[in-house]
Amino acid sequence: MSQKKIYLDYNATTPLESEVITTITEALTDAWGNPSSSHNTGKTAKGIIDQARSDVASLIGTKSSDVVFTSGGTEADNMIIMTVVKHFNKEKMKNVTEKNVDQSLTGYINTESSKKRHHLGEHGCKIGSCDTDEEKYELPHIISSRMEHPAVNVFLEHLKDTAQAVVTYASLSPLTGRLEVENVLHEIKPNTILVTVMLANNETGIIQPVKEICDAVRNIKRGNGETKKIFVHTDAAQALGKVPVDVATLGVDYLTVVGHKYYGPRIGAVYAKDLENRETPLYPFFFGGGQERNFRPGTENTGMIAGLGKASEIAFKNIVKFETDMSKCRDYLEEKLVEAFGKRVHFNGKFAQSERLPNTCNVSILGNNCEGHKVLAKCKVLQASVGAACHAQNKPSAILLAVGVPEDIARHALRLSVGRYTTIEDIDLVVEDLKQAVQMLADEA
Amino acid sequence: MSQKKIYLDYNATTPLESEVITTITEALTDAWGNPSSSHNTGKTAKGIIDQARSDVASLIGTKSSDVVFTSGGTEADNMIIMTVVKHFNKEKMKNVTEKNVDQSLTGYINTESSKKRHHLGEHGCKIGSCDTDEEKYELPHIISSRMEHPAVNVFLEHLKDTAQAVVTYASLSPLTGRLEVENVLHEIKPNTILVTVMLANNETGIIQPVKEICDAVRNIKRGNGETKKIFVHTDAAQALGKVPVDVATLGVDYLTVVGHKYYGPRIGAVYAKDLENRETPLYPFFFGGGQERNFRPGTENTGMIAGLGKASEIAFKNIVKFETDMSKCRDYLEEKLVEAFGKRVHFNGKFAQSERLPNTCNVSILGNNCEGHKVLAKCKVLQASVGAACHAQNKPSAILLAVGVPEDIARHALRLSVGRYTTIEDIDLVVEDLKQAVQMLADEA
Repeated sequence: MSQKKIYLDYNATTPLESEVITTITEALTDAWGNPSSSHNTGKTAKGIIDQARSDVASLIGTKSSDVVFTSGGTEADNMIIMTVVKHFNKEKMKNVTEKNVDQSLTGYINTESSKKRHHLGEHGCKIGSCDTDEEKYELPHIISSRMEHPAVNVFLEHLKDTAQAVVTYASLSPLTGRLEVENVLHEIKPNTILVTVMLANNETGIIQPVKEICDAVRNIKRGNGETKKIFVHTDAAQALGKVPVDVATLGVDYLTVVGHKYYGPRIGAVYAKDLENRETPLYPFFFGGGQERNFRPGTENTGMIAGLGKASEIAFKNIVKFETDMSKCRDYLEEKLVEAFGKRVHFNGKFAQSERLPNTCNVSILGNNCEGHKVLAKCKVLQASVGAACHAQNKPSAILLAVGVPEDIARHALRLSVGRYTTIEDIDLVVEDLKQAVQMLADEA
Repeated sequence: MSQKKIYLDYNATTPLESEVITTITEALTDAWGNPSSSHNTGKTAKGIIDQARSDVASLIGTKSSDVVFTSGGTEADNMIIMTVVKHFNKEKMKNVTEKNVDQSLTGYINTESSKKRHHLGEHGCKIGSCDTDEEKYELPHIISSRMEHPAVNVFLEHLKDTAQAVVTYASLSPLTGRLEVENVLHEIKPNTILVTVMLANNETGIIQPVKEICDAVRNIKRGNGETKKIFVHTDAAQALGKVPVDVATLGVDYLTVVGHKYYGPRIGAVYAKDLENRETPLYPFFFGGGQERNFRPGTENTGMIAGLGKASEIAFKNIVKFETDMSKCRDYLEEKLVEAFGKRVHFNGKFAQSERLPNTCNVSILGNNCEGHKVLAKCKVLQASVGAACHAQNKPSAILLAVGVPEDIARHALRLSVGRYTTIEDIDLVVEDLKQAVQMLADEA
């Protein structure tokens, strides 16, 4: 019963770095004052929050004023998407007074190159899907993918269900496992206001072409040559702490930070580009005491914020080492899996053209009675999952299906994600464990 | 510089009990798994969350299934109010299909007693404010007061500004400092859906007649004798951990729990009556991975939740002692203030008819140059505030004005709130400190 367990589920959540726990404990002990209080007890707390904001900003290559703390990734994702919907509606109201609504909202994509590439018809509408009903453009249009986290996808479905937005899930490429630029451009409509795509997928580990998507949507002109901005949001939950992330290089307008995926606490942050100068809008979900410059009222969770700052500092300083170490471990794991299971091994997230996170191995062990959830149930040492933590164990992953993995292979998938301190010895034990599990299942079959 | 400080600002925030910090640190260290994961790492976290939910439930006298964890009081207050607005709109849509809208939404208050007490006219409308424009009843009507926390008041203003609700701030009684039942009943309209009033005021410490308000609104019949439910919400932030709080005795439908006001962490919870059986509705603000039975998605903040549970357990077990100790200290403080300043002392929250929190003393020291913020600036030992942490230091408190304190007295107000471990010796030092501050200000005048 007390056998050593080896956790390879670091994409579900990570333990906190001991320095992060110390920072949180110290802040809870010494900086418990209300950051809005004018006496010293309050000022100490405020100073700690300022430092943490600066550390989070450094991690993603921006300035403190672009960072707003939230209770986590779900709040951040929801808040960003809701903001863009509200912004669209406000702009529409402005246009109603300035000029005819029809003109302003039913323009067309008119760059020659995008017309050529995306088979646009004379009026810039996609051939076959050109809709003459101009009312369709009254709602904001959001482009996303079928591989997003529920904090994006479920919220988008809610917006659809309540007629607050029109949503398109652009196809993923079965050749790269990515949301390719051309598939995004293919879906652009006159009312497209947001593209939201994660920076790295939680199940396959595939890094998405977010920079290329940003570059491409910046060039789109619509409505009599007018450039109407399409915002780009990326949820960087799985990328942070595993690969360098820089908002300026990416070119995104919004980015979601989630502490517990990079050895930090269960809070998060919103990055909004040049927020101070209102280059990107940000509308609060909550109304209250004015904290976080009114973007996110509520007495600040000083301890957790301090911890997020510390986790960001650690990730920023050590990213090259972490990336190298995890990559070495993951590559060794894949090598050993092939050694152990030969042709029965099918890697689900490996495409020659696509970069992957250094820590993620999505693998199916083929053969009778070897579905992922059965294999895990027979493991004595390995703690892992068949996909995202919140999805049912005995269904094939919708993400794998979306990137073209056949259903019978997807049913066998295991998501093995290594951590910063996973060792080669751990990997050896895990592979042995998998071997005995698969053998046991074969015997039972 | 290193002089001992005495913190008498426990209504702004409290330090965490050391046991709470230990619980949080242990949970962060040992229960960092994703509570949605099916392996043991996840199960450990889930168990801790279940225990914490049970402890919070015990503190307020209810069952676990009525408790939903939130990021704090602001989220809880906003969520409850938004829920009731959505509920009103859903019910309205139902009624549109069932019968004529006008009939169902423009009924009248028809209990004889309330007619008599509240000077209602023949159709139950208040005389003088009877509005024949039935469209006015299309929006949900919310009754609140001018003493609420910004998480209630600012959110209500937002709902007003965006035409999502009609809001009435019922008058506070200058005889009791309370929101009296008759003042609430006076404002009931055919479309009233919610009364939201805090359980104890943060500045005066006055305990509000929430039970009486609940009892009264339950008896109101409207619309051809039909009883349409009016929900009652109370933000119990200032009451919890200071006086016993029991949702069944109070009779409220919703209650807000805020950890950091009772020596716990900066998260909170929503109580919704018999949530499991949908006796009260609760609509989520966020959409995502289904956590908290979909009422509040987002990976659970296990450490903070564990801490909230521990703080609740401590408060529940020791409430009588805490209440007695704080009350003794506060009463001694008031005695000493009178001794020190004689007739210059004016207590702002003391009404013979009203119960107060055991820890709160709102006092003005009258006389030239003795405005509250000036006195605090001259104090060397005392850390306190002139009112709520998030309000400007040199304005008279809107709450004091609302309970009838004259502006020149309100400008002198100090909010002194003692804690569980404040001692008589601390009080002696504070009063000495105040004496020297007032003397210095007199010399400067």
